[in-house]
Amino acid sequence: MEMEGGVDHLAPERSKAVFDVDAMKIVWAGSSHVLEVSERMARLVASDPAFRKDNRPMLGRKELFKNTLRKATYAWKRIIELRLNEEEASKLRSFVDEPAFTDLHWGMFIPAIKGQGTDEQQQKWLPLAHKMQIIGCYAQTELGHGSNVQGLETTATFDPKTDEFVIHSPTLTSSKWWPGGLGKVSTHAVVYARLITDGQDYGVNGFIVQLRSLDDHLPLPGITIGDIGMKFGNGAYNTMDNGVLRFDNVRIPRDQMLMRVSQVTREGKYVQSSVPRQLVYGTMVFVRQAIVADASVALSRAVCIATRYSAVRRQFGAHNGGPETQVIDYKTQQARLFPLIASAYAFRFVGEWLHWLYTDVMQRLQASDFSTLPEAHACTAGLKSLTSSVTADGIEECRKLCGGHGYLCSSGLPELFAVYVPTCTYEGDNIVLQLQVARHLIKTISQLGSGKKPIGTTAYMGKLEQLMQYRSDVQKAEDWLKPNVMLGAFEARAARKAVAVAQNLSKFSNPEDGFQELSADLVEAAVAHCQLIVVSKFIEKLQNDIPGKGVKQQLECLCSIYALYHLHKHLGDFLSTGCITPKQGYLANEQLRSLYSQLRPNAIALVDAFNYTDHYLGSVLGRYDGNVYPKLYEEAWKDPLNDSVVPDGYHEYIRPMLKQQLRNARL
Amino acid sequence: MEMEGGVDHLAPERSKAVFDVDAMKIVWAGSSHVLEVSERMARLVASDPAFRKDNRPMLGRKELFKNTLRKATYAWKRIIELRLNEEEASKLRSFVDEPAFTDLHWGMFIPAIKGQGTDEQQQKWLPLAHKMQIIGCYAQTELGHGSNVQGLETTATFDPKTDEFVIHSPTLTSSKWWPGGLGKVSTHAVVYARLITDGQDYGVNGFIVQLRSLDDHLPLPGITIGDIGMKFGNGAYNTMDNGVLRFDNVRIPRDQMLMRVSQVTREGKYVQSSVPRQLVYGTMVFVRQAIVADASVALSRAVCIATRYSAVRRQFGAHNGGPETQVIDYKTQQARLFPLIASAYAFRFVGEWLHWLYTDVMQRLQASDFSTLPEAHACTAGLKSLTSSVTADGIEECRKLCGGHGYLCSSGLPELFAVYVPTCTYEGDNIVLQLQVARHLIKTISQLGSGKKPIGTTAYMGKLEQLMQYRSDVQKAEDWLKPNVMLGAFEARAARKAVAVAQNLSKFSNPEDGFQELSADLVEAAVAHCQLIVVSKFIEKLQNDIPGKGVKQQLECLCSIYALYHLHKHLGDFLSTGCITPKQGYLANEQLRSLYSQLRPNAIALVDAFNYTDHYLGSVLGRYDGNVYPKLYEEAWKDPLNDSVVPDGYHEYIRPMLKQQLRNARL
Repeated sequence: MEMEGGVDHLAPERSKAVFDVDAMKIVWAGSSHVLEVSERMARLVASDPAFRKDNRPMLGRKELFKNTLRKATYAWKRIIELRLNEEEASKLRSFVDEPAFTDLHWGMFIPAIKGQGTDEQQQKWLPLAHKMQIIGCYAQTELGHGSNVQGLETTATFDPKTDEFVIHSPTLTSSKWWPGGLGKVSTHAVVYARLITDGQDYGVNGFIVQLRSLDDHLPLPGITIGDIGMKFGNGAYNTMDNGVLRFDNVRIPRDQMLMRVSQVTREGKYVQSSVPRQLVYGTMVFVRQAIVADASVALSRAVCIATRYSAVRRQFGAHNGGPETQVIDYKTQQARLFPLIASAYAFRFVGEWLHWLYTDVMQRLQASDFSTLPEAHACTAGLKSLTSSVTADGIEECRKLCGGHGYLCSSGLPELFAVYVPTCTYEGDNIVLQLQVARHLIKTISQLGSGKKPIGTTAYMGKLEQLMQYRSDVQKAEDWLKPNVMLGAFEARAARKAVAVAQNLSKFSNPEDGFQELSADLVEAAVAHCQLIVVSKFIEKLQNDIPGKGVKQQLECLCSIYALYHLHKHLGDFLSTGCITPKQGYLANEQLRSLYSQLRPNAIALVDAFNYTDHYLGSVLGRYDGNVYPKLYEEAWKDPLNDSVVPDGYHEYIRPMLKQQLRNARL
Repeated sequence: MEMEGGVDHLAPERSKAVFDVDAMKIVWAGSSHVLEVSERMARLVASDPAFRKDNRPMLGRKELFKNTLRKATYAWKRIIELRLNEEEASKLRSFVDEPAFTDLHWGMFIPAIKGQGTDEQQQKWLPLAHKMQIIGCYAQTELGHGSNVQGLETTATFDPKTDEFVIHSPTLTSSKWWPGGLGKVSTHAVVYARLITDGQDYGVNGFIVQLRSLDDHLPLPGITIGDIGMKFGNGAYNTMDNGVLRFDNVRIPRDQMLMRVSQVTREGKYVQSSVPRQLVYGTMVFVRQAIVADASVALSRAVCIATRYSAVRRQFGAHNGGPETQVIDYKTQQARLFPLIASAYAFRFVGEWLHWLYTDVMQRLQASDFSTLPEAHACTAGLKSLTSSVTADGIEECRKLCGGHGYLCSSGLPELFAVYVPTCTYEGDNIVLQLQVARHLIKTISQLGSGKKPIGTTAYMGKLEQLMQYRSDVQKAEDWLKPNVMLGAFEARAARKAVAVAQNLSKFSNPEDGFQELSADLVEAAVAHCQLIVVSKFIEKLQNDIPGKGVKQQLECLCSIYALYHLHKHLGDFLSTGCITPKQGYLANEQLRSLYSQLRPNAIALVDAFNYTDHYLGSVLGRYDGNVYPKLYEEAWKDPLNDSVVPDGYHEYIRPMLKQQLRNARL
């Protein structure tokens, strides 16, 4: 966004760009409508001092948490006052940029009731939730149980005498543990528990349970709730009351079991409804495509900060007393930073495509067409894993790219990292997810013989014979810029990695033993497949018409950087499978260097296109105007330690040490 | 260390080990003497409640800092009371495990005076410093100047009229920025400034400057000091007063310039002493070998936590209601965790060797033999870079290996990461350092023609012709266990990477242009060289006699894992340079899997051998007794948010929202 006034220290950088930044902003946002709404909401938040966030790292836990309660409530008040629609409200919340109980209320509690509740249940609970007359969270994971939902221990035993379920935590490890919004705020929760009726265990189901009194907010009888304690980083997720919850035989009416898919009758009989279980996967696809979209946001924030500061910061290379070299001009800096700019764009576009995939899957589900579900499920799982892993590492790399100052909270990067990393673990641990992808790939290959045609992102497996013969025909560096050349190499690599591990698997008499023994190789094959998806969706995007002077050329450059960077990084895969020769690998690296030079003058404009306000970025190093050093200096003095020149503790500790009077000091 | 009582949940794991853990403890410690001192000091700290540290993440900045002042002073008091010698005192400080001003006082201020002060200066200042009658820090980096020391802006202008230097900060960017201990505690500093006399700039020199009054701790006239604000993480480096410092024409006597190497005479003449400048490199070698030693400590703490918790934690794979599988039994977990155990040991041994190298270099310097200095300098720079990068990433990987609970501060891993990562930046940015290594490699190659024999860690370059012909003769997986086979492949890879980039460099008419353009390739070549050093020093260690049942076999297994893991990870290097074939790469991976199975039963014992107390580890997940879940549950309730069941802010924010009374709420 444009500046609020003052000198633009980055103006010389901005004038170097050879493309239309405003047109690129629309491409990044997705449409001019989204751009307009985002910009309006971002300004609304940035211009309101109530949403100040730069003091977060200095606040103690209680103060921090209370501050978040205030902001979340104030945001809700503004949403009501301004009569914001759902799109606007959701944007506003995201620009407030502070994890809060409302995330779980709107993002998990309400969707769970929508997805798993009957029409009557929705009519009863949703109006209350939409007005925030109740606040809900999503209580699934337990102290001893994370990834494996089927291993949950909490029980919901039907009591036909009273027509109630008895919710109970039979062990310490069955304590609900982690749910956001649970510890201090939520009045209700969707609780996942093993359904037991008539002495039989029917596995995990969801139940709406009231946790706290609506009168005085005290936990209801039999319920123990608390916060699980400090988490990684300053500010970050410590604004959230991730909670612990234990049940001591808590009774709820039978109609608070979420009964859209399966029900328990008045007599205690467990019955399946006609609604297909597969609907659950629709929700999973939705949540994971949202995570991919968030990955592109988080990564783009980090690269925006690192790119701008790399243009401001100078080190070495001064000639005759002139200024030192901008660090962005160093090739080592470019080789680390530019692939991350490319990744941010790549994830943006694959996220856009995943959103389309979600709507496609939902339409098919409505029509009882489950045919695309396994492939869609595997591909969203894989992309959630790939993009969140790269983003977590990428944020930390951006921090390092800012040198020492990236370590200061005022750089914004420590908190961005700390608040992002749980994404690698929640909604499916990233390694567990890649194993699911691998399972799907192996199955796809095994079914090729029976003539089953692979679909969607696995369609390339249909030409397996051809891919097993593939030899890249690259002869000069520029050949690597051809989309088909790139796609061919990535398809051949992914196919051969998968086939190689499938062949090894076939040597095991027990397939599950093989799957376990070769799981590290399976993960590698899955990652190769997911990288292919990202490359191919980027290339597909570029097959469309993209308006704006020079915009398409920039995106082509980014697409090539993304692909060639990965080719170089995983050269062993491409060489060992024989897709390319060492000489071709060398040419790829040469082309990559030349693309970095091509990107360099456009770097600042490419991160400006994300259109982030200084408030949202929350980084002195990433300021739009590049006026970094005076502001860093100014920020320092705000630290509580600077309230006094002589620190608290001088008289008790420092002085007795200096004066050699420790013998009798009370420490 | 053994347990304090209670049930050992990891006893079944411990009984699986096939080697003598006590003998391994001696190997890890370096000698039974060091083991004894470490154990004694660790217990001293762990058993004294004054050194409690589990509350750090919850403290606000001021409270945290004051707490550190107390601990550092108390530690000093104990050191005096118990008449601890230097070795004991330094161990005690390290087990207190909290960054404090004393680190800089003992680790930088005193060594700077020792290294750069004349005998008279040492006699004047060291006794004061040793008794802590003055507290010093090391003020080098500036707001606008980090890596490039020659770019510092602070000036020290000699005034012959008064026989004084005038220390001055001419610009905002010349403000000293980052020095630990500076912001609130230090009374003195070694300040680096451009020496100007007789109108001429003689470059950067060190000066002893008093900053604060010894009476009331107020900054002296002309001096502005403060803390630079919050840094990454909870607790972590926020216990340290990294500071900002500005000088407004501050005068110091001429004899406070550190004059061992160069002097300014009474008349203002700049003269070099007979003491060789190269002595400075001795200090650098010392500091960097210490960083390598610290890397093995930090990484081993993280893997100890992750390994123990991986044995405690169970996920999936339950059969017939039996327990789920220990996550350490999953091959994906092993493939991430075991190479890090191997790296911790590898870094321990390369650190041990570096310590020898330092003493060797110092002995030669005393005898004015500077011949080994460039190679020693390059190799310590490279190993500082390699080990600190791997350790930073490795700690975060260990955190992820603990699943969701690794994100809790009580896991100890967030703070371990946050406190460690600056190591990648300070004492030479890791990328800048690898470029120095690369420069040395290229020079070594270029001098081969003139018959100059490469020495030390570059000695293998002497057989370059042979290495350029090298083809691995591995035929079956076990062949990879032979030390010479491994060494051959790593030497050939490193040599060919370096030669390839040297050849590319020769295509540039201006060598510096080439160096800049190819810097990313140069860094890769340097990393390959450094990995070779680690592998070769591990192999060398194993050529010695190592007592203790099964100890050597375990170390051989770890050495092979370290090397084969890197061979697999950098397969592209080995294949593209033709050192090995794809088939041989495949066999390496097969051997790696089998080594993981071999390590598995010994995993817990291998991390027990680090001999860390529960206090030092500071991790509920890494507890010696494996009693994780009850303790996690217990820890949660200590969070300040749990002081009350209904949170502060309920009446102001939550209740008005639930009761739909926001319209008039003051937020």
